[in-house]
Amino acid sequence: MTDQKKPDQATTSEKPWGGRFSEPTDAFVERFTASVGFDQRLYHHDITGSIAHATMLAEVGVLTTEERDSIIDGLKSVKEDIEAGRFDWSVSLEDVHMNVEAKLTERIGITGKKLHTGRSRNDQVATDIRLYLRDEIDVIAEELRRLQTGLLDLAEREAETIMPGFTHLQTAQPVTFGHHLLAWYEMLARDAERLQDCRKRVNVMPLGAAALAGTTYPIDRSITARLLGFDRPTENSLDSVSDRDFAIEFCSFAALLLTHMSRFSEELVLWTSAQFDFIDLPDRFCTGSSIMPQKKNPDVPELVRGKTGRVNGHLISLLTLMKSQPLAYNKDNQEDKEPLFDTVDTVKGCLKAYADMVPAIEAKADNMRVAAKQGFSTATDLADYLVKKGMPFRDAHEVVGKAVAFGVAEERDLSDMTLEELKRFSDIIGDDVFNVLTLEGSVQARDHLGGTAPAQVRAAVARARKSLEA
Amino acid sequence: MTDQKKPDQATTSEKPWGGRFSEPTDAFVERFTASVGFDQRLYHHDITGSIAHATMLAEVGVLTTEERDSIIDGLKSVKEDIEAGRFDWSVSLEDVHMNVEAKLTERIGITGKKLHTGRSRNDQVATDIRLYLRDEIDVIAEELRRLQTGLLDLAEREAETIMPGFTHLQTAQPVTFGHHLLAWYEMLARDAERLQDCRKRVNVMPLGAAALAGTTYPIDRSITARLLGFDRPTENSLDSVSDRDFAIEFCSFAALLLTHMSRFSEELVLWTSAQFDFIDLPDRFCTGSSIMPQKKNPDVPELVRGKTGRVNGHLISLLTLMKSQPLAYNKDNQEDKEPLFDTVDTVKGCLKAYADMVPAIEAKADNMRVAAKQGFSTATDLADYLVKKGMPFRDAHEVVGKAVAFGVAEERDLSDMTLEELKRFSDIIGDDVFNVLTLEGSVQARDHLGGTAPAQVRAAVARARKSLEA
Amino acid sequence: MTDQKKPDQATTSEKPWGGRFSEPTDAFVERFTASVGFDQRLYHHDITGSIAHATMLAEVGVLTTEERDSIIDGLKSVKEDIEAGRFDWSVSLEDVHMNVEAKLTERIGITGKKLHTGRSRNDQVATDIRLYLRDEIDVIAEELRRLQTGLLDLAEREAETIMPGFTHLQTAQPVTFGHHLLAWYEMLARDAERLQDCRKRVNVMPLGAAALAGTTYPIDRSITARLLGFDRPTENSLDSVSDRDFAIEFCSFAALLLTHMSRFSEELVLWTSAQFDFIDLPDRFCTGSSIMPQKKNPDVPELVRGKTGRVNGHLISLLTLMKSQPLAYNKDNQEDKEPLFDTVDTVKGCLKAYADMVPAIEAKADNMRVAAKQGFSTATDLADYLVKKGMPFRDAHEVVGKAVAFGVAEERDLSDMTLEELKRFSDIIGDDVFNVLTLEGSVQARDHLGGTAPAQVRAAVARARKSLEA
Amino acid sequence: MTDQKKPDQATTSEKPWGGRFSEPTDAFVERFTASVGFDQRLYHHDITGSIAHATMLAEVGVLTTEERDSIIDGLKSVKEDIEAGRFDWSVSLEDVHMNVEAKLTERIGITGKKLHTGRSRNDQVATDIRLYLRDEIDVIAEELRRLQTGLLDLAEREAETIMPGFTHLQTAQPVTFGHHLLAWYEMLARDAERLQDCRKRVNVMPLGAAALAGTTYPIDRSITARLLGFDRPTENSLDSVSDRDFAIEFCSFAALLLTHMSRFSEELVLWTSAQFDFIDLPDRFCTGSSIMPQKKNPDVPELVRGKTGRVNGHLISLLTLMKSQPLAYNKDNQEDKEPLFDTVDTVKGCLKAYADMVPAIEAKADNMRVAAKQGFSTATDLADYLVKKGMPFRDAHEVVGKAVAFGVAEERDLSDMTLEELKRFSDIIGDDVFNVLTLEGSVQARDHLGGTAPAQVRAAVARARKSLEA
Repeated sequence: MTDQKKPDQATTSEKPWGGRFSEPTDAFVERFTASVGFDQRLYHHDITGSIAHATMLAEVGVLTTEERDSIIDGLKSVKEDIEAGRFDWSVSLEDVHMNVEAKLTERIGITGKKLHTGRSRNDQVATDIRLYLRDEIDVIAEELRRLQTGLLDLAEREAETIMPGFTHLQTAQPVTFGHHLLAWYEMLARDAERLQDCRKRVNVMPLGAAALAGTTYPIDRSITARLLGFDRPTENSLDSVSDRDFAIEFCSFAALLLTHMSRFSEELVLWTSAQFDFIDLPDRFCTGSSIMPQKKNPDVPELVRGKTGRVNGHLISLLTLMKSQPLAYNKDNQEDKEPLFDTVDTVKGCLKAYADMVPAIEAKADNMRVAAKQGFSTATDLADYLVKKGMPFRDAHEVVGKAVAFGVAEERDLSDMTLEELKRFSDIIGDDVFNVLTLEGSVQARDHLGGTAPAQVRAAVARARKSLEA
Repeated sequence: MTDQKKPDQATTSEKPWGGRFSEPTDAFVERFTASVGFDQRLYHHDITGSIAHATMLAEVGVLTTEERDSIIDGLKSVKEDIEAGRFDWSVSLEDVHMNVEAKLTERIGITGKKLHTGRSRNDQVATDIRLYLRDEIDVIAEELRRLQTGLLDLAEREAETIMPGFTHLQTAQPVTFGHHLLAWYEMLARDAERLQDCRKRVNVMPLGAAALAGTTYPIDRSITARLLGFDRPTENSLDSVSDRDFAIEFCSFAALLLTHMSRFSEELVLWTSAQFDFIDLPDRFCTGSSIMPQKKNPDVPELVRGKTGRVNGHLISLLTLMKSQPLAYNKDNQEDKEPLFDTVDTVKGCLKAYADMVPAIEAKADNMRVAAKQGFSTATDLADYLVKKGMPFRDAHEVVGKAVAFGVAEERDLSDMTLEELKRFSDIIGDDVFNVLTLEGSVQARDHLGGTAPAQVRAAVARARKSLEA
Repeated sequence: MTDQKKPDQATTSEKPWGGRFSEPTDAFVERFTASVGFDQRLYHHDITGSIAHATMLAEVGVLTTEERDSIIDGLKSVKEDIEAGRFDWSVSLEDVHMNVEAKLTERIGITGKKLHTGRSRNDQVATDIRLYLRDEIDVIAEELRRLQTGLLDLAEREAETIMPGFTHLQTAQPVTFGHHLLAWYEMLARDAERLQDCRKRVNVMPLGAAALAGTTYPIDRSITARLLGFDRPTENSLDSVSDRDFAIEFCSFAALLLTHMSRFSEELVLWTSAQFDFIDLPDRFCTGSSIMPQKKNPDVPELVRGKTGRVNGHLISLLTLMKSQPLAYNKDNQEDKEPLFDTVDTVKGCLKAYADMVPAIEAKADNMRVAAKQGFSTATDLADYLVKKGMPFRDAHEVVGKAVAFGVAEERDLSDMTLEELKRFSDIIGDDVFNVLTLEGSVQARDHLGGTAPAQVRAAVARARKSLEA
Repeated sequence: MTDQKKPDQATTSEKPWGGRFSEPTDAFVERFTASVGFDQRLYHHDITGSIAHATMLAEVGVLTTEERDSIIDGLKSVKEDIEAGRFDWSVSLEDVHMNVEAKLTERIGITGKKLHTGRSRNDQVATDIRLYLRDEIDVIAEELRRLQTGLLDLAEREAETIMPGFTHLQTAQPVTFGHHLLAWYEMLARDAERLQDCRKRVNVMPLGAAALAGTTYPIDRSITARLLGFDRPTENSLDSVSDRDFAIEFCSFAALLLTHMSRFSEELVLWTSAQFDFIDLPDRFCTGSSIMPQKKNPDVPELVRGKTGRVNGHLISLLTLMKSQPLAYNKDNQEDKEPLFDTVDTVKGCLKAYADMVPAIEAKADNMRVAAKQGFSTATDLADYLVKKGMPFRDAHEVVGKAVAFGVAEERDLSDMTLEELKRFSDIIGDDVFNVLTLEGSVQARDHLGGTAPAQVRAAVARARKSLEA
């Protein structure tokens, strides 16, 4: 929820474009087409952009320094008013840009009308959103790092804790809990990379494209770009006002991030079930039921899992929005903001919730261990044992498969069979077999880059810390 | 934009489920998981549902009539407070249900605590959304009918106005503008049918499912269903609390409706361009540019076209949300509301804008006629003419193709060629050919059910009016 | 995988539309734009449609009866060739329609060129797809019914088997396994309804719309509609050739069906895990691992769960495809077929796999029962007990919450506490409390329409069987 | 269409995992779960990966050099067989991996059974897809560059050709056609960047992760990575077998690329319409109609526009697929291939068609020029003129708006008014005004980085050529 004041819906007769029109805008159409209800969120970046624009106009001689100063002072006071909640947003002024400009002119007089020289709302809004998104990306990058750090800390703590590794949700092989958490870390590491790749393409300045073709004033776009911290101005004015790639690319990043978080969430929900019971989440991250007094529900993971849909939906909204639009700007593009804003909010909320919660996860190592011993989790180790004694892998697989079938029938694990029983399946089995059938033996044997051995987990944590600091 | 008051975000210590918890909910988690910010919109239907529930509980003897009356009076006064803007929504009470119930208990005392007997928030919210959506469907059905009526009126008026019909956006054959508008009508007619089919599945009552398994109180669900105007109670309690099909089906309806409206919009945008110039939209439905003084932009169609993305996105949100959820209720489901609410608002806004605007469309019949004469639009008529003289269709097609190639080179239409020239391509062409090459001849010749002849257009309007009244 | 032969990619010089063109189609463009690679699947319905068209043309006097018979015989022999694998599909003939027509003309001579009189590929393909989809809908409806029947049989068998009911994947209340299965049944029942609603809108005949405006021949569309089993001809020719609603609506049906099946699948995967171990799937529905000899994986449910993405994707493909297309037919529409065909195939495959597998599910009732006793599943029953003794529900909830907190600390269920211990939380608890704390007591107490009591489950099965037969 | 042979569907009794199973796989389930029908496309990369794996196993002493050589020779001969069409794919062997391995063992005997040592199909398939995708990315990058080059050539040629620039599809300001084409170029330039960013994350090697936990053999993953040209091995085994980010990221790239191409396509379709008539597409890129002899349809752009839906759909398929999957590998993941393969094919086809077609676009400069003069396209220039004479921009906008309203009423452009008439709106207008009202004056005045002046277009082409070569 935002703190923005709702715009006043009374119609004012003055539009910034009324000259060639013979009748006022229909009252419903005015509301239906206005964006100020949601784009007022951009006021800060709008004013920042306008200050830079005025500064540049003065530098190239289009404004005098007095005009520039008057405009900048006026804009600053408008901003103060907005932040103090003293600003009445007007629907009939359509958007944040015209609301701010109208107030500026009301305050400083005729000079205010000069601010819009050499620009259009088309390049102005494109600039505002990029400034906004760049700032939010930096906040998100920081929150992502916080979650990654939390995972590394937990992974290090649980580097030796043994749990069952699953494929197809069937017991596969023992792994360490730390190793499992590092899989989550890797997903986030890719997300963080993608976020920075996206930022490169966000941080380019469309201002100066004006309506679509550039402007006849002697503007210097490199000045504005520098003042606003952009890497460079964009290359083509038509593209500048119609490009919404950056918003789509951000939503693609977000969709993958939430997809990852939905996977973490699914596992947390499984692990807190009575059937798995692998971890505990502190009460402060859970809620109860209005009817069932015993319930303690893992609301945070469930909600994050659900929010995946929201973000995938926004991605589709934006792709559908841009499909088949001829150049340059079309009104359709106004629909870019709400999906983007909500994606930003969703990503920030989910990351904060997880960054807070992950360090508080309590592993129930005993339960994990009991589970890891079930389901013939060391069957592969037995096959590998046979291979090392000279049997081709495919044959070893067949031999162990038969031993497992026997175990299923007898309800006994491989490590609970006698040597004699095991030898029935292959007589090359010796009594050294029992070492490879232990959980510790299994885990420590996978001792190569990327493997689940505790030493590898610790080394991976160390490498990750280093790259995170870089 | 809604008129809802924002909830107070201060934490109250009292949760309706606090008994088994050892620490209060984390402040951020409380906000992150609360739904009251958006589900307060359901207050009216929540209270309606509670009144019916209390009435039923009294009828089966779980409440006394005094308790029932006290609860109902209390609920009504809570509703008045909300509508008068005197209600302080509390985030720590999580949702609309607990906010209302807490206020009720504050007002009427201990009896308020009896209202929740035999139900859960799981079945309560499922009931609230269905009541809400049923009402909105009825509003939308009416708005849809208004737009359909506007189309029929315009189609009747323009039953004889000739325009070029397009395929591949290339001139194909002359059609009447009325006929074209009826194509739009047909799309909406299917949408209206789908909306009613959806309504059947919305109007079923989940109340009584309680948390997931039903309740131990001697409830009579047929009473509550009758009181609330539902067709029948649902058949299975687990399904009742987890089913969100109705929301998805509504969004599927909306996605098709907006897809249709995006097609209308695309055509309106084309037709108001300087290149087509087939229609005029009154100034009150258009807006201008902050930089280009001459601009009059078709904002309404553009915006509606853009909103297609929004609705497609919400459909994907909900489908993704429900994917792979085990039974019964999961917290993920809280994410069902915002996409549904926004879809409802979007559909209503777009329909209202179009129902207002369509009757004001002004056809520029002269421009349409000039365009219809270009592009060899009666070439098919010439081919049909040859067929009627005995030539197989495929051969006639070939002959006319060659005549067109000649016309392209000479920059002359078929009707501008001499009989002699035409005869070069086939000597069975006689001087009766020129009748079939006129626009009127072409249009009137397509005189069968569904064809573009003015008489067929008028008959189709008459049939449509009749079915719309039914 | 299909049995279709691949088209011969050699270019033939003869296009059915070559007359006005000055150079042959680019070889790559020919392949890129051809649809015969996938639309040959429609050959059967294409020929059926052509036979009806020829019959009607003869009936209204456009063809002689000899011509009609020659065409029909020719079409039948073409069909035999295709089915015998003796047909060489040609890419340069673009699509199934032109391939069939060219072969017909090759076979019967000049009369073959008359078949296309009064129609266009635009209305022809729209008719073909509807005929195809109508047939597939009927197959799917039958397969759906088979799965529903399997669920009812299993539900009846397991009407008294007690398992834990979950919300938030936390133990909530005991339910019967039969009741749980009926929740699945209900979802499918809605899907079946939606499928029939969709069928109504599929079974309408576009033939006669010709290219877009109707035709100048004295066709009688009611004859063709009757011959092809359509409910009626469409109302508007422009709409007829551009409408793809029916494909989108079918995909919406499919997306919901697969969403439901993804939920069943998720549960089957959970239930076959070592942690839940609630059911057994026979070996013939599972596969193993190439490396881990002990694995038995629930591949069918996993794969079905995954296929949800496929169907959601196709829905979005079609919605995106149609967005903003101006009337009437555009080449874009050729992209409607592959998503539709794959959706049909996916739905049929998933339903067949489940209809075969569901009857073979073996419930492990003992494991389910043990699980149902964990997690304080009868806490709500205790609260209801207190309410019936006069305590308001909210207070009862609080009391039981505290008893549960005690139980968590002591690691004892409510039914394992002494009366004395229970009385500490409320002294209105008497020794009749232990009846309500049993699983059977809990389940049987939910004895109302939609509740989990075995009697209700049996009654629901009986009602469902009746409605399924209707 | 692919050239792959269809697998033989007969069931063989030998599964690579049959040991623990008591009954054979159900025949339908076998077909339903097999992937060989589509994953045989990976044979080349599967064999390449196996050769590298065998080489590494020999280097670390797990295989002898004789075994290695025998395996490598065997694999090469299997590959030859596949490429010669002599390979019988078997559905009962499930996938490409087992088909190849079975054939290898049939050919070289027991040694073939050793190849699978230290790996699993889980890491094998993940490696295969990455190898496949990396190669396809390189092909796509090249095709993209070819299209970009075509755009630069055309833009340079048309650097001075004036056309109307549009916003809201209403005439906005004159631009050069070259400038417009460079807007397309910019979009593709971002796509090319994104493709390379994606490639970084594709080119990492999962092999060595084995089933999920790593392996007990002394493998050296850096050797295999080097042999296969990967930048490095992956960091975590669980992540390695479950990560499908790279496929999703590629589809995100493709969705944006196709969105851009849908925009180009929309414009090409508009421009070839009789109403715009701005360009000509050679006949070889167009097709005709089976019924309308005069038609020449822009099929390629239409089809490309339609294929946007296909790619957006695949993106959603994959995101939905991965949503909420617990670690590590699940059978669902088999569904990753078809969407990815079809996306690759679609992208390659669309790029090839456009790279071939773009250089053949013929601009109709005269028509463009006539259109540019309509619609008061130089109104902004008049406003700027007034500003330069000292009027604040907002006031100038109002003045020009009124002059335009007068022009609309009189049906005359600004440049067709007399000085006297113009002066009625502001007396600071002098006779130098007519210079700024010409198309050339307007275009040349926008002479800054990114503006539409011909000099800027040429400079932008030069910069782009340089960066394309880099």
